[in-house]
Amino acid sequence: MENTEQRKELKVSAIQNGTVIDHIPASNVFQVIKMLNLHKSDEQILFGTNLDSKKFGKKGIIKVSNTFFASDEINKIALVAPNATLILIKDFKVVEKKRVDTPDAIVKIVKCFNPNCITNNEDIPTRFDVIKNEDELKLRCHYCEKTTSKENMVFL
Amino acid sequence: MENTEQRKELKVSAIQNGTVIDHIPASNVFQVIKMLNLHKSDEQILFGTNLDSKKFGKKGIIKVSNTFFASDEINKIALVAPNATLILIKDFKVVEKKRVDTPDAIVKIVKCFNPNCITNNEDIPTRFDVIKNEDELKLRCHYCEKTTSKENMVFL
Repeated sequence: MENTEQRKELKVSAIQNGTVIDHIPASNVFQVIKMLNLHKSDEQILFGTNLDSKKFGKKGIIKVSNTFFASDEINKIALVAPNATLILIKDFKVVEKKRVDTPDAIVKIVKCFNPNCITNNEDIPTRFDVIKNEDELKLRCHYCEKTTSKENMVFL
Repeated sequence: MENTEQRKELKVSAIQNGTVIDHIPASNVFQVIKMLNLHKSDEQILFGTNLDSKKFGKKGIIKVSNTFFASDEINKIALVAPNATLILIKDFKVVEKKRVDTPDAIVKIVKCFNPNCITNNEDIPTRFDVIKNEDELKLRCHYCEKTTSKENMVFL
């Protein structure tokens, strides 16, 4: 029985082709899954969370088979995983490693913090300019110009 | 670089102590995670979905470290994963394998299908008797006696 189990473990762990997203803060793994719509994917996906990381304390990792994300799609996750590493795998080999880039603008994903903002009162998608201050990310609303900080970010 | 990657894969794949939930229908893995509140757990967790299964087509698997579920907690998942297998691991060894049991009653988890039911109009938790018909599960409301079938189940 043990050998069967062991083989099953191994089968789950590696991907042949696809993308590994590493160094996600452990508490944000499910947010990343939602942002990338992975809960609706038909591809093989492996997730781990609360794994030990030398650099970041507790981290999460996501491995998605046969999926290579467009830059504007993957860069959204910078909001919740600014230090994420993307590892592209082809034929079980690492072909590229890169960091996520923080996008200049964010459309739709986040709710404006200002209850009086037009986006909270009419059917208008939210739109923000991203302000980078060292490790901090803030979002300035395109409409009401109020700033939504990380602590106040509510995802739509 | 390949060797480092390989070691990382192995580290993620096995758990020393805890519970493996196997044979979850691939489309319901995230529902099981939500039902068991795993997205809020601080333990190491590994999930895989859309994995090949001889018995069930596409399946999902969840491995939770240092966690052993109480029967009434784990049996809730029978609603979305009636064929799930629970594998209890101690010191990397399988110490027990069992199936989930379908509970006789379901409290709170599911919304009553009947819009006129008191649970949809007043602050009263839902409560159902579980009716088993071969592979089908239905829920009969304790209050309005209307039957909610699998297709109509909305989780709270």
